[in-house]
Amino acid sequence: MMEVALLGTGGMMPLPNRFLTSLMTRVDGRLLLIDCGEATQVTLKLLGWGFKNIDHICFTHFHADHISGLPGMLLSIGNSERKEPVTLIGPQGLSQVFAGLRVIAPYLPFEVNIIEIPYGGSGEEGEEMLVNEEGLYLNTLSLNHRIPCLGYSLNLKRKGAFDVERARKLNIPIKNWNYLQKGQTVVVDGVTYTPDMVLGNERKGIKVSYITDTRPIPEMAEFAKDSDIFICEGLYGHDDFLPKAAERRHMIFSEAASVAAQANVKKLWLTHYSPAMPDPQNYIQYARAIFPNSFTCRDRTTEVISFEHSPQ
Amino acid sequence: MMEVALLGTGGMMPLPNRFLTSLMTRVDGRLLLIDCGEATQVTLKLLGWGFKNIDHICFTHFHADHISGLPGMLLSIGNSERKEPVTLIGPQGLSQVFAGLRVIAPYLPFEVNIIEIPYGGSGEEGEEMLVNEEGLYLNTLSLNHRIPCLGYSLNLKRKGAFDVERARKLNIPIKNWNYLQKGQTVVVDGVTYTPDMVLGNERKGIKVSYITDTRPIPEMAEFAKDSDIFICEGLYGHDDFLPKAAERRHMIFSEAASVAAQANVKKLWLTHYSPAMPDPQNYIQYARAIFPNSFTCRDRTTEVISFEHSPQ
Repeated sequence: MMEVALLGTGGMMPLPNRFLTSLMTRVDGRLLLIDCGEATQVTLKLLGWGFKNIDHICFTHFHADHISGLPGMLLSIGNSERKEPVTLIGPQGLSQVFAGLRVIAPYLPFEVNIIEIPYGGSGEEGEEMLVNEEGLYLNTLSLNHRIPCLGYSLNLKRKGAFDVERARKLNIPIKNWNYLQKGQTVVVDGVTYTPDMVLGNERKGIKVSYITDTRPIPEMAEFAKDSDIFICEGLYGHDDFLPKAAERRHMIFSEAASVAAQANVKKLWLTHYSPAMPDPQNYIQYARAIFPNSFTCRDRTTEVISFEHSPQ
Repeated sequence: MMEVALLGTGGMMPLPNRFLTSLMTRVDGRLLLIDCGEATQVTLKLLGWGFKNIDHICFTHFHADHISGLPGMLLSIGNSERKEPVTLIGPQGLSQVFAGLRVIAPYLPFEVNIIEIPYGGSGEEGEEMLVNEEGLYLNTLSLNHRIPCLGYSLNLKRKGAFDVERARKLNIPIKNWNYLQKGQTVVVDGVTYTPDMVLGNERKGIKVSYITDTRPIPEMAEFAKDSDIFICEGLYGHDDFLPKAAERRHMIFSEAASVAAQANVKKLWLTHYSPAMPDPQNYIQYARAIFPNSFTCRDRTTEVISFEHSPQ
């Protein structure tokens, strides 16, 4: 199971009724945040998932509306009495940007680890990275914005089904089944049993992808392929704003919907709305004409994604 | 006339219903801001005074809750199409802190000037500085916090009354009176008239002082003397919290009220409340027992302060 909450839906600047675009995910109680603009900590407070379990903060890029809330967020994590390290992930240059911002948050009661993802120009994928022992993997895609920018996908992989018949035939005591099911090896009376002996093929997991700020690039569809939720920027809703979006290296609703359709995702969540667009829902038809399962979001739009039911 | 708006009233971190402590003042349409924590730009948006006329941003100190909103604020000022320079004022080290924060706001469509005020240890006053041609002067006081911290006072000075009798006796043409009244020198038919020839003694102006974060120091009372509004931190309301406040180098309500009483101010606005104190009004009696004209504030508590009526 993965829980996702779009903490904010705005672009450029925080507004009284719209926080900046940021995604919080929760797997097995552990939190991973993508983007942290000014006041993201306030919407997280409203969400109520707490600060202490934030293990990772990922950044798409270093424009202020995606990272200006970092010092305050780290201080609030510190106030939650966290002692374990926090890992920051972002494009190359993250160490330097963090060093700059840290002038106003020099003392933290935990270590900060930094992982810089090489930005290879648009279309290059990063290396899959395990970010949660439950089997949550993170991937990145080099996007096409005014400065280096990364898309993220999160994949919660699911092991094969436990084969009771095979476990019985191998005479594995029932009390050990649970460990094997979780992927652990067990030794019983000197005999070693490995998970592959009793687990079927890997089953469909849960995938969420997050793409902002960028022009569309051909590799997006493959990157977001089969996502349960594809979260994508739509700075403007109306098609007439395409030239303005293109000039600023952003996307419009219909472009996001085209990617969603090509990527065969289950649903599209639009976000990163221009402050000049008070009600994005007025333009949803531009997305739905291309991809019917498109939705505009409000701050803290939340969904619990469960594994698909699969018969044993 | 001076307008003052306490943009936020919180300390430590921005909360869903309480922005961080920050003061906006307006004189003759020009804005001067003191402190700019995370999301101060959001409460300014709610206040509706705009971004374009912000000429000065002053900082008490460099803890994140007083400066973390600077990059976003500058970007929003930039979006307002301001081209004129913005002046930042704060303790020594401001240039370095600004250089750090600027990594996420490298391009601004205006110049940024920086004035660093020497911090002389607690009790030292800065030099009076003219910050608005209408006659607004800024003073600073070195406070006693965990890091160098400045108190601010703003004094809108008022020229003497125009003496009609003297102007008539000197045969100054009426059309020139207005210039002399504004403090300008005029020359009529080769004769020079200076303001002192027709203006009485300087009259009582308007004074607002702003003190946070600090322990009380003896010099505060003189610094805030006769303020129309004395804005002072009260991290905690109940007297029982004095040891905790002292340990963190902050003040409680009754300490702020004692300074207000000694300083003979017209009214005390308490601010910078601990996140652990949801309703500061519950503790107002601790201040009023010492200084009856004490008030807790809410975000965007605003007042228009006019010059006192004085007969010609």
